[in-house]
Amino acid sequence: MPTPGSLMASEIAEQPEVLARLLRDGTAAATQARAAIEHYRPRFALFAARGTSDHAALYGKYLAEVHLDLPAGLASPSSVTVYGSRPDMHGVLFVAVSQSGESPDLVESLQVARHCGALTVAVTNNADSPLARAADKHVDVLAGAELAVAATKTYTAQLLALHLVLGTGDPAAVPDAAARTLEHAAGAHRAAQRFQDTDRLVTTGRGFSYPTAREAALKLMETSYLAAQAFSGADLLHGPLAMLGPDVPVIAMTTPGRGAAAMAPVLERLAAADVEVLRVGPADGLPVASDGIHESLLPILEILPLQQLAWRLAVDRGGDPDRPRGLAKATSTW
Amino acid sequence: MPTPGSLMASEIAEQPEVLARLLRDGTAAATQARAAIEHYRPRFALFAARGTSDHAALYGKYLAEVHLDLPAGLASPSSVTVYGSRPDMHGVLFVAVSQSGESPDLVESLQVARHCGALTVAVTNNADSPLARAADKHVDVLAGAELAVAATKTYTAQLLALHLVLGTGDPAAVPDAAARTLEHAAGAHRAAQRFQDTDRLVTTGRGFSYPTAREAALKLMETSYLAAQAFSGADLLHGPLAMLGPDVPVIAMTTPGRGAAAMAPVLERLAAADVEVLRVGPADGLPVASDGIHESLLPILEILPLQQLAWRLAVDRGGDPDRPRGLAKATSTW
Repeated sequence: MPTPGSLMASEIAEQPEVLARLLRDGTAAATQARAAIEHYRPRFALFAARGTSDHAALYGKYLAEVHLDLPAGLASPSSVTVYGSRPDMHGVLFVAVSQSGESPDLVESLQVARHCGALTVAVTNNADSPLARAADKHVDVLAGAELAVAATKTYTAQLLALHLVLGTGDPAAVPDAAARTLEHAAGAHRAAQRFQDTDRLVTTGRGFSYPTAREAALKLMETSYLAAQAFSGADLLHGPLAMLGPDVPVIAMTTPGRGAAAMAPVLERLAAADVEVLRVGPADGLPVASDGIHESLLPILEILPLQQLAWRLAVDRGGDPDRPRGLAKATSTW
Repeated sequence: MPTPGSLMASEIAEQPEVLARLLRDGTAAATQARAAIEHYRPRFALFAARGTSDHAALYGKYLAEVHLDLPAGLASPSSVTVYGSRPDMHGVLFVAVSQSGESPDLVESLQVARHCGALTVAVTNNADSPLARAADKHVDVLAGAELAVAATKTYTAQLLALHLVLGTGDPAAVPDAAARTLEHAAGAHRAAQRFQDTDRLVTTGRGFSYPTAREAALKLMETSYLAAQAFSGADLLHGPLAMLGPDVPVIAMTTPGRGAAAMAPVLERLAAADVEVLRVGPADGLPVASDGIHESLLPILEILPLQQLAWRLAVDRGGDPDRPRGLAKATSTW
């Protein structure tokens, strides 16, 4: 009988190595995809994904919007696969993100997009998958088999792969920064103690950090059954949740950058409302080794202490984050 | 002291009337927006929204994909408002959906989209709002003030308004069908008893019903603090959740249509895995009065018994769905 959470713990710890491997062995494929995109000159970008990969796709969408200055969206595969939509896709960059590369409807929607004129790029952890084979360009995230149900290393590897294809800013320092960020596990473990009896929680971030908020909420929900909801900072400030109370803690992404600057009024408002806020970024929260890292690369680091938090909380509560109650990983999905 | 949940209960009950009013008094504005879109001939559609309205926007995206045959996506306002992205938006139909029409970053992103060449349409519950004034075309959902924190009638009114602008199929029978669907409240109340001790639950649907799954999960999370996760049926069949266990019940949208047909293999798989499934659609689940209603209009009906379920479950557990613990509605958001 393995120790509960041992798979997820080792996959969390493996991430600096996975990221370094991707920089070393994956850059050539990413550069080819990048050149194809420059040559194609897209007018729109569409991303297609499922589950955790959906948050990586959301990150890719921000890269396309901010770095390529393109209108962009997330595709709904069923419009194509269930309702038979055949839109004119000339001028569309279509990027599919999937760990396994095996989801039939992702494959079909990429094939249709390609047939209808799109330039198609697949980002997967499986070079032999149907999705990888169907795309004009494939980028392998090279993360190795992922055995825990809660995805960790494939997620950060997807983010880095998407950055290599769509981003600006030098990612060379990211693997070391990831290692230094993971060394601060004590902060995540302290936070897990604070949240021991929490059953409801909100995560928030803006811009590039919004996908982090979404992924953190999913991780906490998957492993510890928390009712964790992610909101953009704009929602928390102006929307129906403008007045959060003291019994719903908030985890806020505030690693320095434009997204964090836009969070400042949100934090003021939360402080005024006596909301307990755990900040990701500063030393007294969940520290992130962000020095010298381009803002668009921060999501690769910011999720790390939140993975540690989700893991620790699940273990402290007597659960097994490798195999959450009622959920199991399909064999086809690594 | 008002009875817990009395506001949400009356707003749920009000929906047939709200829908009838929108058909009567809102069709002219929707028809104008529709004509402007036909004249503009968009190549791409972008939807922008927050919270519950985000699920209405997702529904609108399906309408644009399936009925207008357009590639479509959900916009990320912060790319424009925080990072200063100024994409070329010629050929883009930009639709913003908001109850209050007051979210400053939605307003700014619509203004930028319009300035950059998009045709802009706002769907709000507030004709005097900045968002309504900023758009080329405004459609008022005419739902009246919504007082419960959990949005109900503004959501279904947004769906119908979007259908009037982007859909095909006659919605005339929808208000009566909504009234007949709400009469079956006993089914939702029985389901609430089954879920009395549930702390984790999955909702699922495909195509037009996927936004229903998302909105149902949010409603259950908002009002009863359930860890409710929504997945497309494709995810449940092929993804990391392919093997759900017996202790995580599933609510599946199966009202007859192409989306439901695509759910058949999912239901088989769930039955084989001994998963408890509550079906929305059939008489022995949560019945929906779907006879003679075009599939693309079903989401307006399908969410009704799920609102009743969320309400009943919250009240039975001793909560107040009008004012969930720790959350409050901003005055600016009706």
